[in-house]
Amino acid sequence: MSSEFGTLLKISVFGQSHGKAIGVVVDGLPAGEAVDLEELDAFLARRRPGKSPLSTARREADAPVFLSGLENGVTCGAPLCAVIENGDQHSSDYDQLRDRPRPGHADYTAFVKWGGQADMRGGGHFSGRLTAPLCVAGGIAKQILARRGVYVGAHLASVGTESDAPFPLRPTAELFDAVAAKPFPVIDDDAGERMRAAILAAKSDGDSVGGVVECAAVGLPAGLGEPMFGGVENRLAAALFGIPAVKGVEFGDGFAAARARGSENNDPFCMADGRVATETNHAGGILGGITDGMPIVLRTAVKPTPSIARPQRTVSLSAGEDTDLVIRGRHDPCIAHRAVPVVEAVTAAVLLDLLLEGHHGTF
Amino acid sequence: MSSEFGTLLKISVFGQSHGKAIGVVVDGLPAGEAVDLEELDAFLARRRPGKSPLSTARREADAPVFLSGLENGVTCGAPLCAVIENGDQHSSDYDQLRDRPRPGHADYTAFVKWGGQADMRGGGHFSGRLTAPLCVAGGIAKQILARRGVYVGAHLASVGTESDAPFPLRPTAELFDAVAAKPFPVIDDDAGERMRAAILAAKSDGDSVGGVVECAAVGLPAGLGEPMFGGVENRLAAALFGIPAVKGVEFGDGFAAARARGSENNDPFCMADGRVATETNHAGGILGGITDGMPIVLRTAVKPTPSIARPQRTVSLSAGEDTDLVIRGRHDPCIAHRAVPVVEAVTAAVLLDLLLEGHHGTF
Amino acid sequence: MSSEFGTLLKISVFGQSHGKAIGVVVDGLPAGEAVDLEELDAFLARRRPGKSPLSTARREADAPVFLSGLENGVTCGAPLCAVIENGDQHSSDYDQLRDRPRPGHADYTAFVKWGGQADMRGGGHFSGRLTAPLCVAGGIAKQILARRGVYVGAHLASVGTESDAPFPLRPTAELFDAVAAKPFPVIDDDAGERMRAAILAAKSDGDSVGGVVECAAVGLPAGLGEPMFGGVENRLAAALFGIPAVKGVEFGDGFAAARARGSENNDPFCMADGRVATETNHAGGILGGITDGMPIVLRTAVKPTPSIARPQRTVSLSAGEDTDLVIRGRHDPCIAHRAVPVVEAVTAAVLLDLLLEGHHGTF
Amino acid sequence: MSSEFGTLLKISVFGQSHGKAIGVVVDGLPAGEAVDLEELDAFLARRRPGKSPLSTARREADAPVFLSGLENGVTCGAPLCAVIENGDQHSSDYDQLRDRPRPGHADYTAFVKWGGQADMRGGGHFSGRLTAPLCVAGGIAKQILARRGVYVGAHLASVGTESDAPFPLRPTAELFDAVAAKPFPVIDDDAGERMRAAILAAKSDGDSVGGVVECAAVGLPAGLGEPMFGGVENRLAAALFGIPAVKGVEFGDGFAAARARGSENNDPFCMADGRVATETNHAGGILGGITDGMPIVLRTAVKPTPSIARPQRTVSLSAGEDTDLVIRGRHDPCIAHRAVPVVEAVTAAVLLDLLLEGHHGTF
Repeated sequence: MSSEFGTLLKISVFGQSHGKAIGVVVDGLPAGEAVDLEELDAFLARRRPGKSPLSTARREADAPVFLSGLENGVTCGAPLCAVIENGDQHSSDYDQLRDRPRPGHADYTAFVKWGGQADMRGGGHFSGRLTAPLCVAGGIAKQILARRGVYVGAHLASVGTESDAPFPLRPTAELFDAVAAKPFPVIDDDAGERMRAAILAAKSDGDSVGGVVECAAVGLPAGLGEPMFGGVENRLAAALFGIPAVKGVEFGDGFAAARARGSENNDPFCMADGRVATETNHAGGILGGITDGMPIVLRTAVKPTPSIARPQRTVSLSAGEDTDLVIRGRHDPCIAHRAVPVVEAVTAAVLLDLLLEGHHGTF
Repeated sequence: MSSEFGTLLKISVFGQSHGKAIGVVVDGLPAGEAVDLEELDAFLARRRPGKSPLSTARREADAPVFLSGLENGVTCGAPLCAVIENGDQHSSDYDQLRDRPRPGHADYTAFVKWGGQADMRGGGHFSGRLTAPLCVAGGIAKQILARRGVYVGAHLASVGTESDAPFPLRPTAELFDAVAAKPFPVIDDDAGERMRAAILAAKSDGDSVGGVVECAAVGLPAGLGEPMFGGVENRLAAALFGIPAVKGVEFGDGFAAARARGSENNDPFCMADGRVATETNHAGGILGGITDGMPIVLRTAVKPTPSIARPQRTVSLSAGEDTDLVIRGRHDPCIAHRAVPVVEAVTAAVLLDLLLEGHHGTF
Repeated sequence: MSSEFGTLLKISVFGQSHGKAIGVVVDGLPAGEAVDLEELDAFLARRRPGKSPLSTARREADAPVFLSGLENGVTCGAPLCAVIENGDQHSSDYDQLRDRPRPGHADYTAFVKWGGQADMRGGGHFSGRLTAPLCVAGGIAKQILARRGVYVGAHLASVGTESDAPFPLRPTAELFDAVAAKPFPVIDDDAGERMRAAILAAKSDGDSVGGVVECAAVGLPAGLGEPMFGGVENRLAAALFGIPAVKGVEFGDGFAAARARGSENNDPFCMADGRVATETNHAGGILGGITDGMPIVLRTAVKPTPSIARPQRTVSLSAGEDTDLVIRGRHDPCIAHRAVPVVEAVTAAVLLDLLLEGHHGTF
Repeated sequence: MSSEFGTLLKISVFGQSHGKAIGVVVDGLPAGEAVDLEELDAFLARRRPGKSPLSTARREADAPVFLSGLENGVTCGAPLCAVIENGDQHSSDYDQLRDRPRPGHADYTAFVKWGGQADMRGGGHFSGRLTAPLCVAGGIAKQILARRGVYVGAHLASVGTESDAPFPLRPTAELFDAVAAKPFPVIDDDAGERMRAAILAAKSDGDSVGGVVECAAVGLPAGLGEPMFGGVENRLAAALFGIPAVKGVEFGDGFAAARARGSENNDPFCMADGRVATETNHAGGILGGITDGMPIVLRTAVKPTPSIARPQRTVSLSAGEDTDLVIRGRHDPCIAHRAVPVVEAVTAAVLLDLLLEGHHGTF
């Protein structure tokens, strides 16, 4: 019930951070789709830690092994299963953590839900590590979409109070590629420098900082999605909140639209190259839950990494009393930049699912 | 596929604004639950227009007739169907609108999806009027929840750039009732005056303005929800984006968390009255997708009403060229205040669905 | 969770036999589909009782009123809701039945599930009357399918131990129409006479008798359905068991295949008119859950009407002791012949849902 | 969309017969449930081939490796993934089969659906080998159910025209264990001898033979399941048709009920040990889709193995002409006896899912 999303394309994620392996089953992929494993690896590399002082020094192996669904590099129609083995993990601090839930983590809620047998070593099934198999699924979806002229890209829109430039009205595949090729996924490199500085400042304070990821998709036909609860926004949000640390999702101007007037927020329709378009895109490409042919634009709020070096107050579950906690180990001072490809992955998977439905209202 | 949400409690909304009737089927309600029809009517009255200059002068009948599922005022286990007849609607401007899609509305996307037969008179199936049956379903859910000590309430957190006071750390049923009883659903009446003024200013400009609705739920046990895509956030967001005009959903500090540091955003655990609690509630009562026993807090961004009195640019679909449009009729200068009970309704329905699952991780 | 089926085309049935009304919401119908109301009424007439001594003398009004989704006789894309009002029902015997569950009915299980508030007058939500709205939904699906060259038909394959001729290898739309036009829906009218006699014999004994409905669908493309649990068989069976009194579903030779040898049961492939076909159709048009282009053939076992005139043994729930029961009123000595259009309706709805998915494995 | 079933307990099967591995993800298992791996292996051994002349001489390794969800032999709440590696398979005949679809197999339908990239070596994703991971999931479900006093057992009810004794009115866990312990899973060993002879006769004819598996479940509470399409029958059938070669499913007397009269088929209610029961169980423990507290009884028709040694007629897909085919290799002359634990597994999984819903109509 929990770790799956999708209607015709179902993506089911499994594994715990310090278990034997993590992985994903993708059921409903169209057959006959080549998967470029080099391109997929390059995509996975974008979320991989250990590359710079901006992320944890832990090195995670994340080379997927395909157990099914992919033969000779081509999808064969059967469900695809990809597995990533977990290396040796040292879980030395775990006994302390089992009794003293870390603030901002799922330790306590997992304990309430699953009892003492919850495997929360390294965050367990709630670990950000589970986004690696999600990127395998989404990376394949991105390749299938690109073959149909649908491109999905994202950038780090802000870190703390420092902001990148927003996507232009009509982002291009080239822009997506250019951002993806950078070590720090921003549009404006000067802004990127300020954002990096904000991360390093948090790190040197033994602290962490949050950020916002902005994602766009271009090339989609108008008419995708259903009214009310089957809308594109509903389905994207339902999936995007599955990315650990995401606490907000907005489309188009989102919360800024709530501060605007109708005359500012309405996007006038216009003819462009013989097709109906809008002059602006405050709606983020979605009206009434249905795509209007303009780029889909969304933003997700990523909270600051809850693991920080500073001492924190918590409780001892066994003693039933307040206590302190120091979390040891190497942690990401920010995870928002690593979440950029993950947001792309989830967005691509949902959009492919919508496209596979094929039935755009008339038959 | 479209107009339904829920897992064990399925809520399916039907109807068009100017069709014969609108309504809702609620499948999976527990049997034996009394429905207080007076209380339900008072709840429905909160979203009803025509009460003040702040909303449209249209008067909507919204008295539900129960076709099934409710016998002698008590749920009988069978699916409940409630129907609200549409009065006589004058759709005189409709032929113009059929050719010239209104900016910010679903006219164009419905046309692309469903072709010329789309019934978009008065907004059709995308009309805000469809929130009336949603409130019937949610109003019943609220009564069932209240009987178990779970209370859901909301207020208008902002209009344009004017803001209400936020909910306190632990909102109470009394506070929810007090806000609900006010003609303008705010906590701080002075702020409310400024917000009303903002609405009237927009109105006098022939314009509209957006707002934010904050909703909270108290009394829920810890341990509700599933990890990743089955989380409380995922399920609430999937449903809340089904409310017309909602463009953003955030939990706890949401997008503000993206600007914060971990040391600020983490909620320290503490013992309170012998139970585990948190000192602050930046997480909005949800960690790892699972309730932690603190109040659930969420906010939805409501865009400004797209129907405004000012001339707007659009296209003629038949001529394939740019043109102008003036929307006549009576429109809400703001719908955010009327969305307050709707957000409560959807939140209550999702939470009841989660509670009905009953299986909180162990068996 | 209960009274609905479908993936992209969701059909949700509501109502109780003696409640205010019964009805159906059909969500996901393609827009722009004309509904021939005369043809629909003729279809509904096939399940209507009161026409002959073979069925109950009760007369049921079953004229649907369309509340939404149908404008000017054409589907508009929004969910379609059709309602059938219940006439005045006399529920005089109901107090007795409330305490003494009728054998073979859902009285006892509904009581256990929903408690004393279960509305079981006339069978409540479990009544065969609920198949009327199901036929509204399925009758519309049949019209949409026929427009694409897909035809669904059924006949009464047996009553008690008397059997009709089976469908030929390739049934035609003409055969379906011919059977549907008969007052007693059989292929072989001599067999039909024997089957009618079996029903009347049961009736004169104060008893009832069961039967089998055979249904076929022609004109479907090969490649519909998914492997394992998403197969055409799985989805049809999941829906067909929702018809009251159905206790078995089989495809192709079904249980007879379990008595056969592989050399008898395998259908040799052959070229026919330049296309791949099979010489026989023991598989009922489905291999590995996926259509092979041959006619789909299925049979459903319909148990004898549980309401019989003879005294029966049951218990008094209040007294907790064994007792007797005589069910008064007018009852169908057989419902299998009236189930014929219902099986068509459900089959058509599932097949339309499968066709709407549109994605037949490659993209 | 395809290879998964379940509502709160989702079981997703992946893999192809000659791919790298097959496996299953079980999402929604309650936490804290010990899995007895020895008992699980004994259960898996019941479907394993290579034990006698009654099944293929192929030896299949089917030792599951648990990648997630099981820590120290106890479920931890996170999705459980179990993988079974495929040994070296020789697929020498495959090029012939790719062009000449085997009658009765999914070769042709998979080719139509997925095109030339379909991996149908050894039956691919449609292979009976996929029932091994299904038994892993169902075997765990059986253990969890048994801990709550719910027992699921099955026997081979018939092979060809030879029949075993049926289950008694109230089968016991002891009877289930006794049958499971036998090399040939029947109640009456004399009947078993005749059934074995029927299998060997088919084998010596280069042929195969079908059979029926009867399954029962005892210890379930009354009140499980929902009306109409959410019934216990609907959900069991939807899953059971996912077992390869199943072509029919019936509950209680099933198709025999269609030949009976109401006075024979109705089960009189009676008090037994102070509880409501029925004197007979023609309904198979299910009335109106809801359990009545009597044993659930169902039967599945298993068609004869389509792979037979005799020459068969088929087509050459490349040449578009009729041709012949001889299938080489070692095949099961009957798979019905090996399907016995598979039917138990699927039944147990569905029943556990129903039990986990926990909400039996009132709240």
